[in-house]
Amino acid sequence: MFDKNYLLPSDALNLILKAIQDNTLSTERLRIEDRYGRITASDIVSSEDLPGFSRSTVDGYALNSADTFGAKENSPAYITVKKEIFMGSIPDFELKKGEAAKIPTGGMLPQGADAVLMLENAQIVSDDMIEVMKSVAPNENVIHKDEDIKKGETVLKKGHRLRAQDIGALAGIGITEIEVYKKPVIAIISTGDEIVPPDKSVNPGQVRDINSFTLSGLISEHGGIPVKKGIFSDDYEIIKDVIQRSLDGSDMVLISGGTSAGTKDMTSMIINDIGKPGVLFHGVSLKPGKPLIGGVIDGRPVLGLPGHPAAVVVCFDLFIKPIMDKLSGLDSKMIFVKTVRAKMAKNIASAAGREDHIRVYIDERKGEMLAVPILGKSGLITTLVKADGIVVIPHDKLGLDAGEEVAVNFF
Amino acid sequence: MFDKNYLLPSDALNLILKAIQDNTLSTERLRIEDRYGRITASDIVSSEDLPGFSRSTVDGYALNSADTFGAKENSPAYITVKKEIFMGSIPDFELKKGEAAKIPTGGMLPQGADAVLMLENAQIVSDDMIEVMKSVAPNENVIHKDEDIKKGETVLKKGHRLRAQDIGALAGIGITEIEVYKKPVIAIISTGDEIVPPDKSVNPGQVRDINSFTLSGLISEHGGIPVKKGIFSDDYEIIKDVIQRSLDGSDMVLISGGTSAGTKDMTSMIINDIGKPGVLFHGVSLKPGKPLIGGVIDGRPVLGLPGHPAAVVVCFDLFIKPIMDKLSGLDSKMIFVKTVRAKMAKNIASAAGREDHIRVYIDERKGEMLAVPILGKSGLITTLVKADGIVVIPHDKLGLDAGEEVAVNFF
Repeated sequence: MFDKNYLLPSDALNLILKAIQDNTLSTERLRIEDRYGRITASDIVSSEDLPGFSRSTVDGYALNSADTFGAKENSPAYITVKKEIFMGSIPDFELKKGEAAKIPTGGMLPQGADAVLMLENAQIVSDDMIEVMKSVAPNENVIHKDEDIKKGETVLKKGHRLRAQDIGALAGIGITEIEVYKKPVIAIISTGDEIVPPDKSVNPGQVRDINSFTLSGLISEHGGIPVKKGIFSDDYEIIKDVIQRSLDGSDMVLISGGTSAGTKDMTSMIINDIGKPGVLFHGVSLKPGKPLIGGVIDGRPVLGLPGHPAAVVVCFDLFIKPIMDKLSGLDSKMIFVKTVRAKMAKNIASAAGREDHIRVYIDERKGEMLAVPILGKSGLITTLVKADGIVVIPHDKLGLDAGEEVAVNFF
Repeated sequence: MFDKNYLLPSDALNLILKAIQDNTLSTERLRIEDRYGRITASDIVSSEDLPGFSRSTVDGYALNSADTFGAKENSPAYITVKKEIFMGSIPDFELKKGEAAKIPTGGMLPQGADAVLMLENAQIVSDDMIEVMKSVAPNENVIHKDEDIKKGETVLKKGHRLRAQDIGALAGIGITEIEVYKKPVIAIISTGDEIVPPDKSVNPGQVRDINSFTLSGLISEHGGIPVKKGIFSDDYEIIKDVIQRSLDGSDMVLISGGTSAGTKDMTSMIINDIGKPGVLFHGVSLKPGKPLIGGVIDGRPVLGLPGHPAAVVVCFDLFIKPIMDKLSGLDSKMIFVKTVRAKMAKNIASAAGREDHIRVYIDERKGEMLAVPILGKSGLITTLVKADGIVVIPHDKLGLDAGEEVAVNFF
């Protein structure tokens, strides 16, 4: 049953990535607020130092560290407190030998100070005198001017997905607008004479459209813009027409359904008939997801997805997501998959040469995380609803043993 | 330096969660499109079977499995092909003994059929006759009526965070609107006489507002609505006034800055002066994040956050996120932290009794993932920009050894 001539998923994916590697990506200039998750379209260089002055990291006394050398609780140093420094203002004085100034966390160090003594290590002797109970090293409790970011320094590289702290850093250096890549627009075409929209009642023989809803959610979550084109009959002219219309204005086209024997040759034929290079592979060594069709038309990926809901989710992870990353401008040198460690709750077999993606739920028994396989057919959407994630059996393994440690790719 | 009387982070958090456990949460009724990440406010029960009829999972021949028993390649069974079943339509005939009907993937089984023979296991003999090369078991290649979801079955429980496949399942059973909890509204107050907005130029002694941008991103990403109230002076009346105004219309109030010795007593005093129960803890056994203030006023959590950017991110993970989950209606019985496994690149020490959160970046050397600690001060935003995630040293460990396997909580 299993065709050894099929490509491994990673090899199939590379065919598509190679065919779109020279795509030019559009950019837009946006305010930093709510740009969380967007991808930088250029290196971002600071035009100023952060902080712009040396500041204290604690509440205490700014002083010259040399004045405290050798100070201990039983032989304190005595220092004259000259003034108090206030938040946000420039100290208008210079500390001389043996002098200190009270300073709050974040306050600016005065001239002549190179460290800050923490409040709790000082004993107040009089209005203008403290005992230093502990010596401080040069630079102790101080963030230097430009210690965080130097003027001219590259703060974020091109192709970086912006996280909350990155937006914080941009705010910190006064950058309020940045150039990011546009979100990729992904068209979703549902095919099948038996498919009806969810708000219509179903007759026997008909089922509601599940996959375009699942796909839309996955695409949005991964930073794309899903555009549902509707439900279309399995007819050459109709499908060809909607694929052509969808190619105009989107960066990738997904065809849900239409890849099983009955219609797969038609979908392949249409992709080849519309443009070059056309179909790059038809079928992959993957379960679920075997009947996947991958093609490219004039630089735009066109995927014919299997109809089974579980296959759609697996194909999203293995194909659509990395293609979206490429179309989003993400520098993919360092993409890590976040997983949860667990132990397999039972043995599970796999065919050699095929990559198996097993839906599992996590069960905690006696403080141990167990990954319990969900054995229902991949055509059942509830197998995905009950699952917490997926465990991959690589093509060169014949299965997993009960008790074996695995990495669960959480949904 | 380290106060043994401080609470562990988890104990401090529980004080807040306990004080808000009886909060009533608001709900809203919304279309399922783009409801990804929202939390269900009631159990969702199906009013129909999915599928509504028995359907084939392959392209092949619907038949009675008993007719194929014992069939092999060298001794096939012969079966009469009566009709063809089309997608989306009801077969208007019944199969008798020895009869089959051609059926596409997803097609409806006719009366009299209990299994489907795959196309590749049939040999066409004539227009209306096939050889069956392989026996099929009852129910083989069939999804039964109601096998996915039964009428009256609870598909999703109350308090469930909706994932893409959950939305797909709802579409599948014709549910297009659901009741979800409203997103929690989180007010962010920036305090400090030295803080200026990012679009203003800074004088020496001043720094731009970083934390409210970081917090907004983290809150949005985690399903909340951040509302920036602005930057306010460290003055009792001013801060009291803005906290009171913020409590009106939000579910939680965050005060960024104002927790170090200079102002911490004031923030605590204000929280206690506004309402009950007031401050629940002041300071936690945590690094970075020690000066955190946690309070509740009339059922609304009010947190005084440390000013250091790294402390803000750690306090978000340990406090704000679980409080948001509670305010969002999430059933938190099963919340898993997604991590990346790595080995520590160097030794790192920690004080006993304190939970240490170490920023790390991931480096791949010879195929091995290494977690490299970033040793800069927690006041530096770039330590977070350079970091991929955080490694936790629990309060009962004195550090981590180079080569020790750790779980990296990715940002």
